[in-house]
Amino acid sequence: MSVEPGQTSVGFIGLGVMGQSMAGHILNAGYELHVHTRTRQKAEIILSKGAVWEDTVGRLSRKCDVIITMVGFPADVEDVYLGPDGILNHAGKGTVVIDMTTSSPDLAVRIYEQAKLFSIECLDAPVSGGDLGALNATLSIMAGGDKKIFDKMIPLFEVMGKNIVFQGKAGSGQHTKMANQIAIAAGMVAVCESLAYAKKAGLDPQTVLKSIGQGAAGSWSLNNLGPRMIAGDLEPGFYIKHFIKDMKIAIASSSRSGLRTPGLDLAMSLYEKTVKMGYENKGTQALFKLFE
Amino acid sequence: MSVEPGQTSVGFIGLGVMGQSMAGHILNAGYELHVHTRTRQKAEIILSKGAVWEDTVGRLSRKCDVIITMVGFPADVEDVYLGPDGILNHAGKGTVVIDMTTSSPDLAVRIYEQAKLFSIECLDAPVSGGDLGALNATLSIMAGGDKKIFDKMIPLFEVMGKNIVFQGKAGSGQHTKMANQIAIAAGMVAVCESLAYAKKAGLDPQTVLKSIGQGAAGSWSLNNLGPRMIAGDLEPGFYIKHFIKDMKIAIASSSRSGLRTPGLDLAMSLYEKTVKMGYENKGTQALFKLFE
Repeated sequence: MSVEPGQTSVGFIGLGVMGQSMAGHILNAGYELHVHTRTRQKAEIILSKGAVWEDTVGRLSRKCDVIITMVGFPADVEDVYLGPDGILNHAGKGTVVIDMTTSSPDLAVRIYEQAKLFSIECLDAPVSGGDLGALNATLSIMAGGDKKIFDKMIPLFEVMGKNIVFQGKAGSGQHTKMANQIAIAAGMVAVCESLAYAKKAGLDPQTVLKSIGQGAAGSWSLNNLGPRMIAGDLEPGFYIKHFIKDMKIAIASSSRSGLRTPGLDLAMSLYEKTVKMGYENKGTQALFKLFE
Repeated sequence: MSVEPGQTSVGFIGLGVMGQSMAGHILNAGYELHVHTRTRQKAEIILSKGAVWEDTVGRLSRKCDVIITMVGFPADVEDVYLGPDGILNHAGKGTVVIDMTTSSPDLAVRIYEQAKLFSIECLDAPVSGGDLGALNATLSIMAGGDKKIFDKMIPLFEVMGKNIVFQGKAGSGQHTKMANQIAIAAGMVAVCESLAYAKKAGLDPQTVLKSIGQGAAGSWSLNNLGPRMIAGDLEPGFYIKHFIKDMKIAIASSSRSGLRTPGLDLAMSLYEKTVKMGYENKGTQALFKLFE
């Protein structure tokens, strides 16, 4: 099968902030779109634009050629795919399922193997780029699974993202996302310490950014979250509670492979402190509050 | 005084890899250049191009309107400025001295205050950008001291660098450089852990960089040193031994201001391990050897 607007019916499960934008792009591209999410209210906007509501995951699964999931935690992914009303129990042979949730690489492999038994094709394709990336269809999409299925899905990925990269066999998308989160984790600690140092030294942190933002110390975090730290703006671009979820998966996955990650462990322990301070629903830049 | 080729005589002390390039730009710009360095052999190239050799710091100091230092450790800076044959004992009133070594902010303040007693003007102006930045005159220069002296020295800075920023009173240049090194320190740990994770997960790290290099995990270290880590290329762009020197100053300076820096401390302890493994004279990317 190939995907084509007017030919392919797409199911989308999980209409959080990210999911709503992503599903919207699919609908706008002309695909027949069926949606399901735990809180029906979240589907109202997209239903008003022509998406079809499905009461259960099972009903949705029986009607769609391609099913995309963008839910919360690995436990949700497991339930949506492997539970009694789950996708694998209801989708027809040849259906393509794509989990775009950031989830456990091991679980991605398990779902892929189960799906094979049902003759269902499976990709893991988590994203980075946050709310804004989803809204502007500029997400980075990192995919694992069978290359020939990935290739067929490219048109669908292209309505949601820009940097679409096949990373290898099942689980590789999730592993790549973990590598992404690990690179961010201790990096955030570094950014906080640097700007806290600048403030304590009596420097103007904005002027310091002019000196250090573009050279060897430069990073997306420093240049994008640094100014929010300085301004005390804690609005979530990426929620601390979600980052902690990702770091937990990364720590479990690292430890299974025998890799020591002291920087990641440190970041995790510091972010757990921010939760105790009440910053769980703030953006990851609120880590700065520990250092100020 | 203002600086002008043909009018201003410039002294340059310290002709290591960085110093040789920087002094070369000053000579090429048409300034009368006097040089001194511990190992005369290192001056040969620049002497052959027309620089004048001075046997001692004192002799150099008596002949120059502006004196730039680019030496090794804070102890060297202290000796060159405050020692018996040091600059302050020999330079004339109104001389401008500029320390571009990465050194202790406290020492920079001490030298500034001593210099005032001798009616000598003093700036601290460390750089970032490494060998290549020095060679290509694209250094980032972060300066502290009196703004009116900084302004007068801009033409001289411009022959060596591109991003020239006044950061505040004496010591502020060094403090800014410390903020720069602190942002790099735990960030390097993050990059190593991320790429080591990718390798252990069986991914192709080059392909992973395509997914994660440009988004929220992106950094100069990831994009420039990551490929060298993957390739096993340990050639020094920036020496581990020099980075350790800088981190020591940063840790001392943080602790004096009561700032806790667990990420910096972690990076320091890991880099100390690389020294034990024999990587002192390798580039900072050799940290990856601890994680591979």
